[in-house]
Amino acid sequence: VKVTSHDVARLAGVSQPTVSRALRDEVGVSPATRTRVREAARQLGYIPSQTGRALSTRRTRRVAVVSAELGNPFYPALIDPLAEALSGFGYRTILVTDRGTDEVELEPLVDGSLDGVVLTTCDVASRLPEELGRRGVPHVLLNRTVRGSPADACAADNRTGAIWVADLLADLGHQRVGAVHGPSSTSTGSERSRWFRRRLTERGVSLPQRYVRQGPFTDTTGYDALTDIARGGECPTALFCANDVIALGVLNAAKDLGIQVPRDLTVVGFDDIGMASWPVFDLTTVGVDLADMARRAAVLLVQRMAAPDGPVRRLRVTPTLIRRGTHARPPLAD
Amino acid sequence: VKVTSHDVARLAGVSQPTVSRALRDEVGVSPATRTRVREAARQLGYIPSQTGRALSTRRTRRVAVVSAELGNPFYPALIDPLAEALSGFGYRTILVTDRGTDEVELEPLVDGSLDGVVLTTCDVASRLPEELGRRGVPHVLLNRTVRGSPADACAADNRTGAIWVADLLADLGHQRVGAVHGPSSTSTGSERSRWFRRRLTERGVSLPQRYVRQGPFTDTTGYDALTDIARGGECPTALFCANDVIALGVLNAAKDLGIQVPRDLTVVGFDDIGMASWPVFDLTTVGVDLADMARRAAVLLVQRMAAPDGPVRRLRVTPTLIRRGTHARPPLAD
Repeated sequence: VKVTSHDVARLAGVSQPTVSRALRDEVGVSPATRTRVREAARQLGYIPSQTGRALSTRRTRRVAVVSAELGNPFYPALIDPLAEALSGFGYRTILVTDRGTDEVELEPLVDGSLDGVVLTTCDVASRLPEELGRRGVPHVLLNRTVRGSPADACAADNRTGAIWVADLLADLGHQRVGAVHGPSSTSTGSERSRWFRRRLTERGVSLPQRYVRQGPFTDTTGYDALTDIARGGECPTALFCANDVIALGVLNAAKDLGIQVPRDLTVVGFDDIGMASWPVFDLTTVGVDLADMARRAAVLLVQRMAAPDGPVRRLRVTPTLIRRGTHARPPLAD
Repeated sequence: VKVTSHDVARLAGVSQPTVSRALRDEVGVSPATRTRVREAARQLGYIPSQTGRALSTRRTRRVAVVSAELGNPFYPALIDPLAEALSGFGYRTILVTDRGTDEVELEPLVDGSLDGVVLTTCDVASRLPEELGRRGVPHVLLNRTVRGSPADACAADNRTGAIWVADLLADLGHQRVGAVHGPSSTSTGSERSRWFRRRLTERGVSLPQRYVRQGPFTDTTGYDALTDIARGGECPTALFCANDVIALGVLNAAKDLGIQVPRDLTVVGFDDIGMASWPVFDLTTVGVDLADMARRAAVLLVQRMAAPDGPVRRLRVTPTLIRRGTHARPPLAD
């Protein structure tokens, strides 16, 4: 038989509403009564119904984090610290994953079971932030931004990072440069490719189309890109990858093709996920402090939930260039 | 202003209870009325409140998956197909992560917001299944089993897998064998170490304590284990790792220490996560069909939710030995 708040009230010798107030730490309950109620609840093994509590307080202390597939190691690196930060603010994190090309459904995000939403994988043209705004659901964009959205946002300064990579390759003397871009439908993909290309041009280095590939942010994209480029004969001497996961795929393909990194090929990633520093990869990359970025997004959301009409904030986290073992001067031309 | 079911009722010209029944596809509503209500709901952008719906139907169509930190790539490989299978049965997956050594809290799992629970990271002595059972919450153990629990369970046949690894090493002629075990507080950790050790003994191969280390199922455990063993001077010629993530850490340490795999050291893992087949690792391992295991657990849970008193089922998924590039005969003794 399920224990109810009425049982607790009977044992503690108080009314049922007093039980609810005492367990919610609301004011107007004496410390002695509070103690008595808590002791009675403990004895009976009573656990308040979240559903009932949500209806009476209109708050659920739950936040949804919307993310692409977890199989991509980038997202756990972002979501673990995010969940930890939200937990520190007293919120439980519910993970909502979108699968494949379909965008996540709106309904579970606006059905009243959530106090707020963090969006981490929106396309630039996504209508999700607008729909959440229209329904008054507090939300924050993390990692990817959305065109024209008035939402709070926290993302990496992709422009600065991409410029640094272009400068690194130009400074090393590379003239045959390639790139494996992410999807142009994402802010991270389009910003990183645009500024890399622009800076290379400024530095007098071309980026010929035969050395450029594009695809989802997966290791398969990187593997297939280098395999395909190498099939064409002459390879570039340096390859900028739109994220670390793509770069790891490139390193795998290099291994299979017998291409020595960095002697024959310089490879540079973006993000600095945990695996980038593994000795077998030792990847030179643009470091984004993902934990810090996630924590800042948590703060933005908590502020937004507390002040729905407060000023909108857009944060850009400055990256650092992390020089490890996958970059070198180009091999001497034969 | 939030649209309510009363607004929909007014527009459709029906009563509010009829709106609820029509949107829930209950019997007793004519097709014409149903169409009119749905059209009215669509026009107004009405979305039924999940909280209210849960109170009236006592079902939430939500299932919690309890898992350790997502940063460990083993879990996404298990949880992605699990969420997909549950979604196919019409259930939304809520991910509940436990952090560090503390076990996940009971309260969010029994507060009435869930129809069922899948536990993937319980210790053998966990009281979670018992507590869920006591409160009538349908649950299934996936990947790890719990001592004495009468719950449905789906796990790998760790005994068979560990025996195969011992046979592989013995057949190759290894005599200096070591192991990096997982936590003995987990069924996976204890089963894999016990049967590996037992089979080695049967084959006349010893497992000296100086070649054995133990720790959490992380790459750091593997990295530190090989680094520490190597510091002692003489190394084993083969190392069995309790899971692939530990094995990847061992491969990283081997790289740093200049130990050639498999020429100097054979390394074998367990699980066959995606990265095990990456060319840079090419890890010989015990393959567990994680997607199949997850799907079977989803079926067990759906059956349990439909028939709380049905017979208990315990499934063991048979693994396969996957021979890749990290095993070889031991180097000739000097």
